[in-house]
Amino acid sequence: MTHVYDDPAAFKDDVLVGFAAAYPTYVQRVPEASGFVRAGGPLEGKVSLVLGGGSGHYPSYSGTVGTGFADGAVLGDLFASPSAEQVYRVCRAAHGGAGLVMGFGNYAGDRLNFKVAADRLEAEGIDVRIVWVTDDIASASADEQAKRRGIAGTFTVYKVAGAAAEAGLDLDGVERVMAKANAATYSFGVAFDGCTMPGAGEPLFHVEPGQMDFGLGIHGEPGITSDAWMPAPALAARLVDTVLAERPADADGRAAVLVNGLGATKYEELFVLFAHVAPLLEKAGVTLVQPEVGELVTSLDMAGCSLSVTWLDDELEELWTAPADTPAYRRGTPVTSDRFTERREVTRETTQSAVAEASEESRRAAEVARRAVAALSATVEEHKDELGRLDAVAGDGDHGIGMSRGAKAATEAADTAAEAGAGVRSLLAAAGSAFGDKAGGTSGILWGLLLDGVGQQLGDEDAVTDEAAAHAVQASTTRLQEFSKASLGDKTMLDALFPFVDALVGAVDGGTPLAQAWRDAATTATEAAQATASLTPKIGRARPLAERSVGTPDPGAISLALIVTAIGDVLADGPSSPA
Amino acid sequence: MTHVYDDPAAFKDDVLVGFAAAYPTYVQRVPEASGFVRAGGPLEGKVSLVLGGGSGHYPSYSGTVGTGFADGAVLGDLFASPSAEQVYRVCRAAHGGAGLVMGFGNYAGDRLNFKVAADRLEAEGIDVRIVWVTDDIASASADEQAKRRGIAGTFTVYKVAGAAAEAGLDLDGVERVMAKANAATYSFGVAFDGCTMPGAGEPLFHVEPGQMDFGLGIHGEPGITSDAWMPAPALAARLVDTVLAERPADADGRAAVLVNGLGATKYEELFVLFAHVAPLLEKAGVTLVQPEVGELVTSLDMAGCSLSVTWLDDELEELWTAPADTPAYRRGTPVTSDRFTERREVTRETTQSAVAEASEESRRAAEVARRAVAALSATVEEHKDELGRLDAVAGDGDHGIGMSRGAKAATEAADTAAEAGAGVRSLLAAAGSAFGDKAGGTSGILWGLLLDGVGQQLGDEDAVTDEAAAHAVQASTTRLQEFSKASLGDKTMLDALFPFVDALVGAVDGGTPLAQAWRDAATTATEAAQATASLTPKIGRARPLAERSVGTPDPGAISLALIVTAIGDVLADGPSSPA
Repeated sequence: MTHVYDDPAAFKDDVLVGFAAAYPTYVQRVPEASGFVRAGGPLEGKVSLVLGGGSGHYPSYSGTVGTGFADGAVLGDLFASPSAEQVYRVCRAAHGGAGLVMGFGNYAGDRLNFKVAADRLEAEGIDVRIVWVTDDIASASADEQAKRRGIAGTFTVYKVAGAAAEAGLDLDGVERVMAKANAATYSFGVAFDGCTMPGAGEPLFHVEPGQMDFGLGIHGEPGITSDAWMPAPALAARLVDTVLAERPADADGRAAVLVNGLGATKYEELFVLFAHVAPLLEKAGVTLVQPEVGELVTSLDMAGCSLSVTWLDDELEELWTAPADTPAYRRGTPVTSDRFTERREVTRETTQSAVAEASEESRRAAEVARRAVAALSATVEEHKDELGRLDAVAGDGDHGIGMSRGAKAATEAADTAAEAGAGVRSLLAAAGSAFGDKAGGTSGILWGLLLDGVGQQLGDEDAVTDEAAAHAVQASTTRLQEFSKASLGDKTMLDALFPFVDALVGAVDGGTPLAQAWRDAATTATEAAQATASLTPKIGRARPLAERSVGTPDPGAISLALIVTAIGDVLADGPSSPA
Repeated sequence: MTHVYDDPAAFKDDVLVGFAAAYPTYVQRVPEASGFVRAGGPLEGKVSLVLGGGSGHYPSYSGTVGTGFADGAVLGDLFASPSAEQVYRVCRAAHGGAGLVMGFGNYAGDRLNFKVAADRLEAEGIDVRIVWVTDDIASASADEQAKRRGIAGTFTVYKVAGAAAEAGLDLDGVERVMAKANAATYSFGVAFDGCTMPGAGEPLFHVEPGQMDFGLGIHGEPGITSDAWMPAPALAARLVDTVLAERPADADGRAAVLVNGLGATKYEELFVLFAHVAPLLEKAGVTLVQPEVGELVTSLDMAGCSLSVTWLDDELEELWTAPADTPAYRRGTPVTSDRFTERREVTRETTQSAVAEASEESRRAAEVARRAVAALSATVEEHKDELGRLDAVAGDGDHGIGMSRGAKAATEAADTAAEAGAGVRSLLAAAGSAFGDKAGGTSGILWGLLLDGVGQQLGDEDAVTDEAAAHAVQASTTRLQEFSKASLGDKTMLDALFPFVDALVGAVDGGTPLAQAWRDAATTATEAAQATASLTPKIGRARPLAERSVGTPDPGAISLALIVTAIGDVLADGPSSPA
């Protein structure tokens, strides 16, 4: 279990501080961000590879920042995606002017946050490509390879992409080889026991003593079979057979092979396993190219290991065996890049968007938006405990706390933007980003997107009419649904948001003034939120918990209704009245 | 706990196979030996550094074989010293013609086995220096630094020595800087829980839940204080304060600093600790030179960590920061050695002594010795179970099994030597070496030494008179006592051996023929062995077990009496009778 920590809530931050202190010649912290770029800053003209995900998987991701590998790494809390804001900041700092490739394992939270950051970077004129890794055979069938999650094979895919960028491939080229490496990578793992979070008395999950769980995810996601303990030769055969069963027809036999330990399964054990894996692979006609045996993708002190095979062609072999020089992984003749020599300085400003020019009209609208955000925050604060109690029925009870953290940060960001003369688009972008960054969780990123989306529709130039405001909320809601993949009736905030938007747009289009239409629509939202009590959430694995929530309204829908009601009061004050 | 293994008794061998398969560009197995040398063989003209100790501490020792670090690594079973024979073989293979430096942590078994191997290598004309590491502050007071055991600071000391050899220092020079580095290295550690051996259901030892044991040894040796769990800043302060308390007066502040994890204490935790350790050291005026944070000296999946500080002068700093390129540790610009380019091939023959020329008389004596060894083996086999039962009273019950394994191997080695025309010295050297190698444990190395010592006295040239034989046994016994550090009355085999030797030499010197004197002395030995029942062994920590053995004779003394009795029968047959 995890024994060394101070404040468990600050564990990730302490790790960042210690890592930066240990490797100053390799990395530098990105100012005010949860991540690193190469020491000295990004290389001018080189495609930048930014890797990220939850903390707890060292040396993923920070341990591989360096020549021939990653340009930046962004870390979320333990096993939690970094926020879009953090991804954005690290990417800004890591960008060398030739475009960005983002790499992460296929998990919903990472996909959401990296996508939001990518959209924002694209809007600022940076070309961004996203490749998420899907190597885990156990997590979906061969027909649905794209749905597989990323485990230890992420290492090989990232390594190939980093080498491609170092070799001078352009953005299309790096994206292409990274996608090719991902399609050629197959992993299968086994777990013996779970890991313990800092401050927790018990592991996150357990494997039954004397059992091995095949295909168990690195955060406790269910496995596919549980078996009695078996000796190393049988374990090796099971791993090899499963991975080779998906050998592509066009693979010529060359392969990058990785036997990875998750944390508590030690080097000696990994060598014992490899002693049996290597001859089985060779017997099956596999040529092992620079195999790796070690702890390259961990999960705190989880007990378990995996076999990853990446089928190589000439191009992938050259990239896999290319030199790399990073804190945790060094191979070949370590070189500093000779292709790229100019570096960009990373300053506090690098990671922030400049405040865009705004019209007088847009600044007036921004003042309304600022007061709306402040009202949002005051309402959340007032109802924090109630929202927590609602969330405790079917969730972890942190909805109120998360919303409160996000709303406070959004208010501060909105105030700062207003002082800098921001228009309504820039103000809501800043508020939305801060919300998503500090609130955490799904509610955080969704509220952040909603605020940002309204701003994007309104812009920094145009005067904001009643129709424009109503339609901006509608467009942002539609975008939100696309991102969240939720449907009406899934017992989420959308079950209150959609009735609200329909009522709002209908009334405004019919000629009702915005303030009146908003207050009426807020009443509709409140009724719809209460009605979610009869729904059952579609949240997959947590079925028993989900069923417990029948009879209780959804906390996300309730907070939405409370917030739109509070914003209605702001609008009733009129755009030009004092705050 | 350890989950991946096949036959627990073959765990070390499986690790060796897997490690060799993973790193063929770095290492090669030494034929018929439990260890590695650099791939391609030793460098002609370079001082060779051979490291070793028990398995289970990866990357110690095999993981650091490579340019700028070790030339060879020899591994014993889990947490057990390698045998002298294994040390000898790996050293023979690693020797580049400019002498050998042996490095290991200060443990009794390692000191014994490396010393025996060193004596043998010296006898063959190879100049050998031994430096054992004594960095663990917790294991003895500052007045008795030489008695301290070796823990994670071994890594720094070995690294400095490896760099010195790579830089071309001669044998005196490498020994000098290694001893200087050892004297400048101070470590202090904390354990949270024990590790589990392959196949065992429970850890070797436990730390009470919620406790931290400061100074606990990496094999469960007792700590100095147990404390309630404390957060990372307090833990960092405790480690830093303890290590800095022994800061030498002449240290200028530069230091190699290592925060080491023992296996289950993960990178993230080590970085959290380092985040607090680094500023405390800096505040105390320490300049951290290329600090290392990671798992460099492990103990299977033991939970715990340590802080090591090596105070640097210009010479040590240059060696500490010199490049190294090994499987587990790569720093700086990895270079292949340019100073040394010629390699020596390692063949099966490299690791074996050539059979020395022998006189006809000595070969006749060798035939008697061969039959004596065979009788030894037959007797041990006959009484194996009885010896096991005696040992089970106060030990682990493996005395019979170990003696049986050793005696069989000795018999085979003696037969092979006799076929090759060996004289009595060479035959007993081969038999003794095989005995120590296969029997394991203290009995193994002592019996090996006893056989070898008799042979050394007799030589390969001279005819063996009765007087020469008796005095050879006496001289070998004296040497044995020096090695074992045991005293008469400690309840060991010496309590039967000394009365036997005194009776034998007295009778032969008084004119009694050897065969008769030996049989009489064997009777004395049997009585003395029985009399050990009234003694209490001096075996330190295992006091309660030791006291259980009062009333039971010592199995080592009993087996000695049985063996000398059986050899008496061989001598009665006369030197020239058929086997």
